[in-house]
Amino acid sequence: MNVLIVHAHNEPESFNAALKDTAVAEFERGGHDVMVSDLYAMDWNPVASAADFGSRANPDYLVYALEQRHNHEAGTLAPDIAREIEKVQWCDLLILNFPIYWFSAPAILKGWIDRVMISGVFYGGKRIYDRGGMRGKRAMVTCTLGGREHMFGPEAIHGEIETMLRPLLRGSLAYCGFGVLPPFIGYHVPYVDQQAREQILVDYRERLNLIDRLPLLDFPSLDNFDDTLRPKRTGESISSDTLSHAS
Amino acid sequence: MNVLIVHAHNEPESFNAALKDTAVAEFERGGHDVMVSDLYAMDWNPVASAADFGSRANPDYLVYALEQRHNHEAGTLAPDIAREIEKVQWCDLLILNFPIYWFSAPAILKGWIDRVMISGVFYGGKRIYDRGGMRGKRAMVTCTLGGREHMFGPEAIHGEIETMLRPLLRGSLAYCGFGVLPPFIGYHVPYVDQQAREQILVDYRERLNLIDRLPLLDFPSLDNFDDTLRPKRTGESISSDTLSHAS
Repeated sequence: MNVLIVHAHNEPESFNAALKDTAVAEFERGGHDVMVSDLYAMDWNPVASAADFGSRANPDYLVYALEQRHNHEAGTLAPDIAREIEKVQWCDLLILNFPIYWFSAPAILKGWIDRVMISGVFYGGKRIYDRGGMRGKRAMVTCTLGGREHMFGPEAIHGEIETMLRPLLRGSLAYCGFGVLPPFIGYHVPYVDQQAREQILVDYRERLNLIDRLPLLDFPSLDNFDDTLRPKRTGESISSDTLSHAS
Repeated sequence: MNVLIVHAHNEPESFNAALKDTAVAEFERGGHDVMVSDLYAMDWNPVASAADFGSRANPDYLVYALEQRHNHEAGTLAPDIAREIEKVQWCDLLILNFPIYWFSAPAILKGWIDRVMISGVFYGGKRIYDRGGMRGKRAMVTCTLGGREHMFGPEAIHGEIETMLRPLLRGSLAYCGFGVLPPFIGYHVPYVDQQAREQILVDYRERLNLIDRLPLLDFPSLDNFDDTLRPKRTGESISSDTLSHAS
């Protein structure tokens, strides 16, 4: 399979970079093709602006998502954006590899999402969740953070990590139709000793080798929502499913 | 009171900018002092990197949060960061005003959070939540989005908006000790007519005038967690509360 790793750490020698390198080595050893977008090394511009567009559907008033769609169709998207879109279209598995900043992605990676995951290709109208543009591909979040594992959970001080990561797991990846794997998280990374770090790398290799057997996270299906995206009453949903299976 | 509005929209004529202008006018009419950080107009750099630091605690290996603390103490933070920190220290109320991109802040604003909300001033060690560096100040999120109101809620397709905004409301603002007001949200903004937009501005003025009477959102209190940030057993918590009230 084709794997794209989008990596966003400002220290090339970081443990976070070691996770990225581990994934590259592990996938290549398994005969897969790997590309890495190392956003700091690429000096990636994260700011969504009018400069992203070589032509304009409306030159007087910028609606960013509308111009994404227009410029993709016209072939006039900024070249750095167009290149990243091609990489995502090429890949079967997308890995976002980053240190948690403020319970979410660093700005440089948020700006990759803002600029690359364009309307008209990744999603559009009611082509979201299991009807999103990226359906058939999988995605995984791999991240490191300073907190300890006991700080996350239903009764823990920061609540559940999957809830903190919801805008990313559900609101971005699942929204576009990616099958989303459970996140891999290296806890307390700046403070643990070499042995603990080695163990995280061992765990990560094991996770990567299991990747085809891991169940995907559960997200909304458009089958359960009507044309206005309101939840269907249960009766309606069953009835229409039955009809479509019978036809 | 002193109000800082951090505004992040790439179209100066946007409805989102009208919300920012409404807040400026309304607070000034009430005799308050207002500053605006208009991130697009300032050409704000959102990328957290080694270039933010005029000196280094460790020149060979970048741990961003540790260098934030060191450079603040040494007075060697990048001037654009130092200026924004001063504005936040000056304000009693911080408003983040932005269009929702991917169920969160646009990268340019995420990068304001990443670079400005520094370790050692905004938080540090166990100085988080109700012991955070910004306690005594309040904060509010004002945002616009394309979705309709019925798409958010416990049974709705995107779930609850406060859950989607959790990394911001809880993981960033409450984490630093801000008293967090309920978010103000303009739904379906790119698609509604002029009358509906006017109504949102009327609702916003009303919200701003009620601001001193609005209950704050509820977040963890360090009183309920022990020195390792594990939840105290209820007995312990009640017993220590009782003692402190009796003393």
